[in-house]
Amino acid sequence: MNYRMILYLLGWVLNIQGLCFLLPVAVGLFYGEAQWQSYALMTLICLVLGVLLILKKPKRTVFYTKEGFVTVALSWLLMSLTGALPFYLSKEIPHFLDALFEMASGYTTTGASILRNVEALSHCALFWRSFSHWIGGMGVLVFLIAIVPLTGGHIMSLMKAESPGPSVEKFVPRVRQTAFILYSIYFALTVLESMLLLAGGMPWFDAITTAFGTAGTGGFAIRNASMGFPYVHAHYLQTVVTVFMLLFGVNFSVYYLLLSKNIKKALKSEELRWYIGIVAFSILCITLNIYRQFYGGNALEALHHAAFSVSSVISTTGFATTDFSRWPTVSRVILFTLMFIGASAGSTGGGIKVSRIILLVKSSLREIMSIVHPRGVNVVKLDKKRVSEDVIKGTISYFILCILIYVVSVFIVSFDGFDFTTSLSAVAATLNNIGPGFDLVGPAGNYAAFSPLSKLVLIFDMLAGRLELFPMLILFSPHTWKGSLGAMKRRLSWKKESM
Amino acid sequence: MNYRMILYLLGWVLNIQGLCFLLPVAVGLFYGEAQWQSYALMTLICLVLGVLLILKKPKRTVFYTKEGFVTVALSWLLMSLTGALPFYLSKEIPHFLDALFEMASGYTTTGASILRNVEALSHCALFWRSFSHWIGGMGVLVFLIAIVPLTGGHIMSLMKAESPGPSVEKFVPRVRQTAFILYSIYFALTVLESMLLLAGGMPWFDAITTAFGTAGTGGFAIRNASMGFPYVHAHYLQTVVTVFMLLFGVNFSVYYLLLSKNIKKALKSEELRWYIGIVAFSILCITLNIYRQFYGGNALEALHHAAFSVSSVISTTGFATTDFSRWPTVSRVILFTLMFIGASAGSTGGGIKVSRIILLVKSSLREIMSIVHPRGVNVVKLDKKRVSEDVIKGTISYFILCILIYVVSVFIVSFDGFDFTTSLSAVAATLNNIGPGFDLVGPAGNYAAFSPLSKLVLIFDMLAGRLELFPMLILFSPHTWKGSLGAMKRRLSWKKESM
Repeated sequence: MNYRMILYLLGWVLNIQGLCFLLPVAVGLFYGEAQWQSYALMTLICLVLGVLLILKKPKRTVFYTKEGFVTVALSWLLMSLTGALPFYLSKEIPHFLDALFEMASGYTTTGASILRNVEALSHCALFWRSFSHWIGGMGVLVFLIAIVPLTGGHIMSLMKAESPGPSVEKFVPRVRQTAFILYSIYFALTVLESMLLLAGGMPWFDAITTAFGTAGTGGFAIRNASMGFPYVHAHYLQTVVTVFMLLFGVNFSVYYLLLSKNIKKALKSEELRWYIGIVAFSILCITLNIYRQFYGGNALEALHHAAFSVSSVISTTGFATTDFSRWPTVSRVILFTLMFIGASAGSTGGGIKVSRIILLVKSSLREIMSIVHPRGVNVVKLDKKRVSEDVIKGTISYFILCILIYVVSVFIVSFDGFDFTTSLSAVAATLNNIGPGFDLVGPAGNYAAFSPLSKLVLIFDMLAGRLELFPMLILFSPHTWKGSLGAMKRRLSWKKESM
Repeated sequence: MNYRMILYLLGWVLNIQGLCFLLPVAVGLFYGEAQWQSYALMTLICLVLGVLLILKKPKRTVFYTKEGFVTVALSWLLMSLTGALPFYLSKEIPHFLDALFEMASGYTTTGASILRNVEALSHCALFWRSFSHWIGGMGVLVFLIAIVPLTGGHIMSLMKAESPGPSVEKFVPRVRQTAFILYSIYFALTVLESMLLLAGGMPWFDAITTAFGTAGTGGFAIRNASMGFPYVHAHYLQTVVTVFMLLFGVNFSVYYLLLSKNIKKALKSEELRWYIGIVAFSILCITLNIYRQFYGGNALEALHHAAFSVSSVISTTGFATTDFSRWPTVSRVILFTLMFIGASAGSTGGGIKVSRIILLVKSSLREIMSIVHPRGVNVVKLDKKRVSEDVIKGTISYFILCILIYVVSVFIVSFDGFDFTTSLSAVAATLNNIGPGFDLVGPAGNYAAFSPLSKLVLIFDMLAGRLELFPMLILFSPHTWKGSLGAMKRRLSWKKESM
């Protein structure tokens, strides 16, 4: 394990984090809120530590996939821990575990909150919560790759570990350039959404934080009513958010293809078609299911809220215009399923990802085919290209581990004694980075009532979900550290002997 | 597709079914109930049809895995359809779909009932319901193999399609002898349980039907209170049933090894150890969870009911001594998980099977290992033997298809508008052949209220679950019939041309 290199990268992460804190400092000073001081203090601490760690560039840059995963997992833990401190220092969230939950929820773009009254927070805290979605959505290490000239083969393993999807695509041969393009598209779309929201009469603070929350598919809102807006053009604004939630759930390679004027190829993406199909089918079913009972036969109004909720859940954003947790069973079952399906690979959304679901379905159908035609050759294809057996294996393991973590988490959380649906959906909503679940943790509820143990489990689930399981599992796997511990012991015993 | 051979085997299945009907005829005559006539009529119909079909032995006995699966699926559909007729003819169950549900539930050893009042049934109907569990538990085609001298390579493919587990073990080189040994152990254990129940003061009719229900891990009881016995030695009787439910959930190869005095090897079975471990852990957790709230601090009483319920659910029997659906969330989450885990491969129980769970866990952990040690060779081992990649692939596909069928079924069933937990658990309890779920379909409830569409879906799920998905999926897959339809079309066009 190349510890020097890992620490060097963590140093850079701390520096970025330190600089990011300057934004809420500015917001606090602008609104004349005293809380800016906590963020300023954290800037100082992060930069001092960060600069110390990057002072000496490591000579040995050998770096394997394992180290990539460990670095990513540690970076996200570090960011959540330091990011939570200002909430705690400013006493806006009095318990540190709650602050950590809120921050992990922010960075992992989950949007699950322990706050009963969001509107009591200062502007700088609200801004920081929403901004963490934006950084977490595309990933801090992808950002690092885009702006810091790192060299060596380790860059790709970092990107692989942080970017969602069964396999990571490089748009251009150079990783750094790919990362830069990704962030540029991301930035441009965020600006576009903010402008459309401003055009609808939204104040700038609301527009920017909402755009951050949408872009990262996060879900923190600055109001207790989430996206139930008090503005004149509420319907227009909600529609803008609906469209952008869907857009941020699309694989960014589609946008790159569009920008390269490769429109045909972009629209032929199998994942995109399934994604659109699933969204359309879900909206239709839910609209039919709710328009009489909940909207007095007003199908358009039902369609509006169904479209918003479906987009919010499949993109794993978690905004709400209405308490979908109170809808009838069909709608709840659909939304619950969408929680696990999630957005597209290579997007900022969470969940299992549409392309993984396609691969899972295709690889199981292959088994049926192999019984019907035992001598036929069956390969799984995606976008007309053969998918390697390694990617299929990885996808399947991902799925099984996801379910294992889900079951174990539900088991632990259920000790809190909340009802069956709350327990099932709280874990689903955190592991898949959505935010709100059903009943107690529905859009009208929050996660405050859970025990500290459950909160820890849910924090683990959020991080595991955002990083697609393997980084967190490898960080906590004894096998990862076996060799290192052995080496350490050998070194110690050698020292003893030489004494 | 070798249609002649399939029809020949279906003829044998009809003959067996016809002879089985003689048992309820005898019971009806013994109790002086008029319903015996419906069963006698069915004996006649089945034997006439069956004998017609087996009159000419097919010359071409070529038979592939595909044909094996299709035969098994058709046999079970045929058995359920003919088996349901006496209920309908005797007017004990006035709607045919309900009768079919009850019978599919019987043969697939599910034990889910549409009856609101079981005690209103005649003795012959009660006997027939319970006896269907016994035949369904070990399988009618395994029975056929054991008693009818069939030849050719097709026998193993029939056994593979009907017996549960990721791979079918032959105790002895000859399939017929293996089938015979299986049924002998099965018969002996059933007799033993009946005698222990008789010894506890149970009337013979109760003892035999209860033993049938336990042996097949079925779950139909002859009382509305299931195993809440009105007898003096209720606790002793329930304990006997607990022990035998667990025993029938064990891989029968363990008993064969014990009989062959290979005790060491029998006890070393990895699946057996996991099975015992899961059972012990679940009983402990549930006892701790319920003893204060539900049994006023009486830990022994809580242990008694926890042990019964855990054994009932993991063996997928579905008997109940108490309404476990009212227990707190932890207990419900554990039982819900056990529903999917199910019993051991090669037992009469349903669910995913413990050995499959072991393989799934091991194959996903392998993925983590391959990231930590990219150059290491990772093979999955069970009982210290390497598991072939084909078996692992099959297991994984099984798991994914199981979840797909589960999700689609829940979606359709949820249109009935029952609550979330009822919908989720109704499908879980039928697909995994348990019987009772939670809430409306809990031990105190039944499946009567579901719509005809939902009942059809649940019937499909029960059959798919008992036959381990592939036979039913292959029966309904268009690919299976593509070649045959093509051949039929060619033949027709050839006839036209020659005219």
